[in-house]
Amino acid sequence: MDAVEVRNAETFFASAPPLRDRDAIVAKVEEFVQRRLPTASGNRASRMVCITSGGTTVPLERKCVRFIDNFSSGHRGAASTECFMKAGYSVIFINRRGTAQPFCRFLPEDPLLTCFEPAGDNLIQLIPSHAVAVQKAVTEYHSALNSGHLLNLPYTTLFEYLEILKIVSLSLRQLQRNCMFYLAAAVSDFYVPWQSMVEHKIQSGVGPMAMELAQVPKMLMLLRHLWAPEAFCVSFKLETDVKILIKKAQAAREKYGMHAVVANELETRKQKVIVVTNEGQVLVEKDASQADVEIPLVDFLIAQQTSYIEAGGANVLVV
Amino acid sequence: MDAVEVRNAETFFASAPPLRDRDAIVAKVEEFVQRRLPTASGNRASRMVCITSGGTTVPLERKCVRFIDNFSSGHRGAASTECFMKAGYSVIFINRRGTAQPFCRFLPEDPLLTCFEPAGDNLIQLIPSHAVAVQKAVTEYHSALNSGHLLNLPYTTLFEYLEILKIVSLSLRQLQRNCMFYLAAAVSDFYVPWQSMVEHKIQSGVGPMAMELAQVPKMLMLLRHLWAPEAFCVSFKLETDVKILIKKAQAAREKYGMHAVVANELETRKQKVIVVTNEGQVLVEKDASQADVEIPLVDFLIAQQTSYIEAGGANVLVV
Repeated sequence: MDAVEVRNAETFFASAPPLRDRDAIVAKVEEFVQRRLPTASGNRASRMVCITSGGTTVPLERKCVRFIDNFSSGHRGAASTECFMKAGYSVIFINRRGTAQPFCRFLPEDPLLTCFEPAGDNLIQLIPSHAVAVQKAVTEYHSALNSGHLLNLPYTTLFEYLEILKIVSLSLRQLQRNCMFYLAAAVSDFYVPWQSMVEHKIQSGVGPMAMELAQVPKMLMLLRHLWAPEAFCVSFKLETDVKILIKKAQAAREKYGMHAVVANELETRKQKVIVVTNEGQVLVEKDASQADVEIPLVDFLIAQQTSYIEAGGANVLVV
Repeated sequence: MDAVEVRNAETFFASAPPLRDRDAIVAKVEEFVQRRLPTASGNRASRMVCITSGGTTVPLERKCVRFIDNFSSGHRGAASTECFMKAGYSVIFINRRGTAQPFCRFLPEDPLLTCFEPAGDNLIQLIPSHAVAVQKAVTEYHSALNSGHLLNLPYTTLFEYLEILKIVSLSLRQLQRNCMFYLAAAVSDFYVPWQSMVEHKIQSGVGPMAMELAQVPKMLMLLRHLWAPEAFCVSFKLETDVKILIKKAQAAREKYGMHAVVANELETRKQKVIVVTNEGQVLVEKDASQADVEIPLVDFLIAQQTSYIEAGGANVLVV
């Protein structure tokens, strides 16, 4: 691994604003991972996946009024969480505040005001056409949380996202090849370093505004080679221009040593994706019986991880 | 009024992406305003206020992955909507999707998942500690909508915001001095003109990224002098640096001919504001009995508008 990459990452973290509730997050993650480790009584470890979802923000001012945001509804991450849980995985769901939550993807925007109505005497009731969907969503979401197989970690900024991802990686690595990273979040490529960020709101004045943004260090490299080197790593490449998509996915796989890169094009991403591995490209498409492309995608990746675990030799925990 | 400003605004609108549902929005606004106009049977017009709330986004790419956002929770706009309705005004609430809604400001984030729990058999129930707040919010919100005195118009981008504001202005002007604009939204100062916007996702490549943003035409000028020249106009100035705040508020009042500019500093804006009018500055502060600074602020502005209506002469409709 490139020493420059490591130094860039160290500089990034050293200059990032302190993560609020860091100790509580570390403790929650460690407790969640410990419960999945094999015990003396012979319990086998379950597999665990860290799913990242939604887009990160990049503040342009310290007292943040303006920021650059990356659009992502979080539907892919939420749907994939459901699929992995169904397959028996425990899930650490690192998600942007306000984006889609597992089991709740089909609710309308602002479900409280849309799905309930006054019923007199300050009481409220579910509007009949929404009742089944709302009851199912709340029930399934809480069951997943209460099962102890889902850990929900929200973020907003790029800084929070990367700090949390690092915390999770350094804990999950204990599961060796039984853990997977499924990095579906839309992460900013550019940012304003905290040190050089203006304290106050940028003044509008006259004429156009020029802005210079620094590149975010390539954290995939660190995750793959330093933080959790045995984990099965899946990253996502979203492009709006299909002509460059596959080439960029292949380049990302080689550069960062990903086990799989999921290439998706903005307009067709809900029907099909192309998975690039060291064996080539595979088109993964949902069939008529499947509600989401994440169903065949997660199946495919789980099979890939199983091969990876089996190739890993005797000291690896197999479910 | 400066011919350059008018031309800049025309260029902006001509090059903006078409507003989705434009015809439906025009019809809704016109119907809402018509119901408040005096009829032959002698009904007097009620006063009406257009409140803008939340922050606008500026897309950086046409197939929008990245955008610049302006932070605003929308609490001021939502609280002010409640105050104006209590005072008998009808309210057109132009608000950023997902930001605070009137009567719902004190609910937790994601209230459906936070305030409800499974009750077995796929049924759900309100968690007792949240029950009163949720029932009150849903009841009051729907009552306000059903009363016919609240029109809710959501936006996301700067383009949508300005198109909707223009539509509302050109309709509200019929109410002459009986209408108010209360422009609390955090509107982008800079944008990427649609014509010069790249079609596809900006490529990260190597090295830092330079971005040049154009100034948004000063629409306050058009609103005040062309779209609704008799309306009582209130704009807001938010700064994080208190040293320049008042000077900027005074400059905005003079430049755009606002009837009042509300100057607020990021850290103290929930306790006090300074209102700049042509008569000077007035400190408006909430007292111990008041839940929100919007209560005395809206009182103050309504009194100012009443004077403005009374000064307007006989052809003006007085409530």
